[in-house]
Amino acid sequence: MTSTSPESAAAGGETNDPIHIRRLELSDHERGLVALLSQLSACPDLTASEFATRFAELAAQGDDHVILVAEDTSATERRILATGCLFVERKFLRGGGKVGHVEDVVVDAAARGRELGLRIVRRLVEIARDAGCYKVILDCTPELRAYYAKCGFVEKGVQMAVYF
Amino acid sequence: MTSTSPESAAAGGETNDPIHIRRLELSDHERGLVALLSQLSACPDLTASEFATRFAELAAQGDDHVILVAEDTSATERRILATGCLFVERKFLRGGGKVGHVEDVVVDAAARGRELGLRIVRRLVEIARDAGCYKVILDCTPELRAYYAKCGFVEKGVQMAVYF
Repeated sequence: MTSTSPESAAAGGETNDPIHIRRLELSDHERGLVALLSQLSACPDLTASEFATRFAELAAQGDDHVILVAEDTSATERRILATGCLFVERKFLRGGGKVGHVEDVVVDAAARGRELGLRIVRRLVEIARDAGCYKVILDCTPELRAYYAKCGFVEKGVQMAVYF
Repeated sequence: MTSTSPESAAAGGETNDPIHIRRLELSDHERGLVALLSQLSACPDLTASEFATRFAELAAQGDDHVILVAEDTSATERRILATGCLFVERKFLRGGGKVGHVEDVVVDAAARGRELGLRIVRRLVEIARDAGCYKVILDCTPELRAYYAKCGFVEKGVQMAVYF
């Protein structure tokens, strides 16, 4: 998960910024997406076929499911340094309203302190707003409250879970 | 939202139970679903056309989006007394795992104390487990922790939100 301490160094001017934040591509399986996610949760590797199947399922959701990744385009080896996901839930309440859910935000341990996580989350919030969501929600540990507050999030409730 | 106080009265034997818990039908627009949801959140009424459009969008998600309703089949006027929603999120982590999200659980104020909410939530948890989810999560107010604990939920984190 992203660090609780302030990420101090800005990534520099947009023009020369080697960090490219973009939507997930199928080929990002080779760029370490699954290994990156393993820093957040148990994450056994997927075969290329398994990855492609899940990728296709999510791609079929169009703009209702967006995974962003941060890639350092100046690196010799193209690796994914950070990622975050947004999916849009459609409801009957709020006049047929939509809610954005942010999930699976993680920054590579070696890339923290560069605001990559914040940049991804802010972009996801923008996407949700542009999609007409009336709110965006996420769940996190109490230690990350201040981190997400930098993206405009305020504490709203408690997360409950059942594990099978 | 469902009551914080224990719902004491069981609904009786399954055989004679007039409460029918089933999946949402298009005709439930006429049975007060939107008015019921307004007890949970701002919920302006939808036209029949708007309701049908949203219903079709959600139905297209198949078993990845389930709305259950509780109806009293013994009542002269068929009304929806309680509802709850489950949607399934597909991830890359956990070996391509799935997470169930429970949303929009509400019991009509006049029908509380009959365990309708608990029955719906337990059924949604079963559906998630049968669908292969590794966990089910929901967000609620701190006052509802004990209520959801009856369905096996434990507190896991904090919910953060941005409202537009």
